[in-house]
Amino acid sequence: VTGGARATGSELDRLLTLAEDDVAGRYTATVEPGWEIGHAVNGGVLLALVGKALATTFEGRRHPDPLAVSGYFLSAGQSGAATITTEIIREGRSMATGQASVLQDDPDGAPVERLRVLATYGDLARLTDEVRTTAEPPDLPDPERCLSASAGGAPGAVAAFIQRFDMRLDPATAGWALGEPSRRGVIQGWLRMADHREPDPLMLLLAVDAFPPVTFDMGIPGWAPTLELSAHVRAAPAPGWLRVRVSTRNLAGGLLEEDAEVWDSRDRLVAQARQLARVPALLA
Amino acid sequence: VTGGARATGSELDRLLTLAEDDVAGRYTATVEPGWEIGHAVNGGVLLALVGKALATTFEGRRHPDPLAVSGYFLSAGQSGAATITTEIIREGRSMATGQASVLQDDPDGAPVERLRVLATYGDLARLTDEVRTTAEPPDLPDPERCLSASAGGAPGAVAAFIQRFDMRLDPATAGWALGEPSRRGVIQGWLRMADHREPDPLMLLLAVDAFPPVTFDMGIPGWAPTLELSAHVRAAPAPGWLRVRVSTRNLAGGLLEEDAEVWDSRDRLVAQARQLARVPALLA
Repeated sequence: VTGGARATGSELDRLLTLAEDDVAGRYTATVEPGWEIGHAVNGGVLLALVGKALATTFEGRRHPDPLAVSGYFLSAGQSGAATITTEIIREGRSMATGQASVLQDDPDGAPVERLRVLATYGDLARLTDEVRTTAEPPDLPDPERCLSASAGGAPGAVAAFIQRFDMRLDPATAGWALGEPSRRGVIQGWLRMADHREPDPLMLLLAVDAFPPVTFDMGIPGWAPTLELSAHVRAAPAPGWLRVRVSTRNLAGGLLEEDAEVWDSRDRLVAQARQLARVPALLA
Repeated sequence: VTGGARATGSELDRLLTLAEDDVAGRYTATVEPGWEIGHAVNGGVLLALVGKALATTFEGRRHPDPLAVSGYFLSAGQSGAATITTEIIREGRSMATGQASVLQDDPDGAPVERLRVLATYGDLARLTDEVRTTAEPPDLPDPERCLSASAGGAPGAVAAFIQRFDMRLDPATAGWALGEPSRRGVIQGWLRMADHREPDPLMLLLAVDAFPPVTFDMGIPGWAPTLELSAHVRAAPAPGWLRVRVSTRNLAGGLLEEDAEVWDSRDRLVAQARQLARVPALLA
C-alpha cells in the first residue's frame, strides 16, 4: 500500500506510506527522526498514522475519510518502526466505525502499545453542502506580519519537528515566546507544511496537535502530555494556508482541556478537536 | 457487585447495580423501561452504565473515577438485559486506561454491540486543588423561574425519560418549546435527579447527554443521534443542583458538534463533553 494518488516526495506522505502486513488490517510504518517533541513522537503524528491505516482498511468500502477519531495515549512513541493494527467494528451505509492501535517494540522486542483509537469514517465528498456555522475564523494578521515559529529560536527538543511546518503565530498570542504570556489561554496562527504539501483530512489530524501547547500562553513552560484527544474532521480542506486556534478555559486539578479549531483558505471550519492533557509541573 | 455505599432506592443507582459475571471484567445489568428517547436508550444512560462497569473493574486499583470517556455508538440500545465487558489496557501510578463494550442480544439471541468505549480513570480526590478557570457558569434565573421540562407537555417518546429528572430550562433558551427557537444554538438550565439522588462522577456521564438536543434551538425538530461523545469529568460534584449548558457552533454537512458543560453548586466546572451528532432530517 502506498499513499496512492497522494504519494509524493512530501515528508508527511513519506510518514504515511504504509506497508501491508500478511495479517489483514495490519500495517507497518517507519517514523523518521524529527517527528518528536522532546522524547516522544508528537500525538498528531501518531493520529495521522493511525488515521491513514484506518483509511486504507476502509478505502475499498466507500468510507475513505475520518469523521471522528478518539485517541488514548498509552506510552511515548519513538522514531523507528511501528505496527498499526486495525479492526472494523461496524459498517453502515454511509459510515463505518473501527478500532486501531499503534505498537512499537521495546528493547527486548516485546510489543508496547503507544496509542489506541476508536474512529468513525465516512465520505466527506458525499456530505450535504449545508453550512450553518456561527463560529468565526480567527482574525489574524497576514502571514508575513506573524511570528515564524520555525525561523530559529525554537528549543532543540522541538526544532526538527517545527521545521517540518511553516507556522506563523499571531504576535498578539505569542507574547509567551518573549517571556510575556497573555494568560488568556489562546494561541493562534497560520499553518502549512514546510514543503507546501497541501492539506487533506489526514493532515488535519496532525494539525490539531501541532501547535505549541496552550499552557505556554498561561505562563506554564514544559510540555503538556495528552491523555486523550478527540478530533472531528468536518470538511476536506481547500488548498493553501490553514488557520489554527488552540484555547483552554479550564485548567484545574493538574489537568486542562485544549480545544483546537482549524479553518481552511475558503473560511470553512474543517476540523475541531479537544484534548485532555496534564499540566506540566511548574518549574518554580 | 452492588453500588456499594451508594446503593440506595434511587432510579439511577438501580440502573447502575451490576451483577458480576463468571468471566472477569464482565457484568450484567438491566435497563428498566423509561430510559429511552423514542426507540433508543439515551446515550448518557449507556455511558453511565459502562462508566460504572469500568469503575468496578478499576475500583480495587485506586482508580475509581472516570476522567475521560469516549464512546462510539454502534446501534440503538433497548430496555432489558445488557452485558458490559471491560478490559484494562494500561495501568499507571495515578491513572489507568481501559476499554469497554455494551452488548445486548438480538431477537435470535446473538449479541449486538451498542457502544464501544475507551476511557481513562483516576482518583478525583487525589488531584490538586489548583483551579484556574476562565470559563463562567451559565447565568440562570432561579429554578422556580425556569421552565420545568418534566411538568407535562413533553412528547410521549421522551415523557418517561424526562420524568426521571428535575430539569428547569432557562426561558431565554427555551423559546423552541413555544415554537420560537432563538437559533443561537444554546440551551441551558438546572438539572437534578427527580428523586434527589445527589450527583457523583457517574451521574455526570448521564448529565452531559440528558438535555434536549441543541438542534431544537436551531429550529430543527427530531432527535439528533450521537455518533461519538467524549466526556471529561474534572471534579467530583458537590451536592445540590447542577447547571448544564449545551451549545453548538458548527452545523454543517448534515452533522453538528454539541458541547455540554456541567457546573456544580459551588460553581466548579465539573464536566465538559463534546459529541458529533447527525442533524435530524428536516421535516419540510
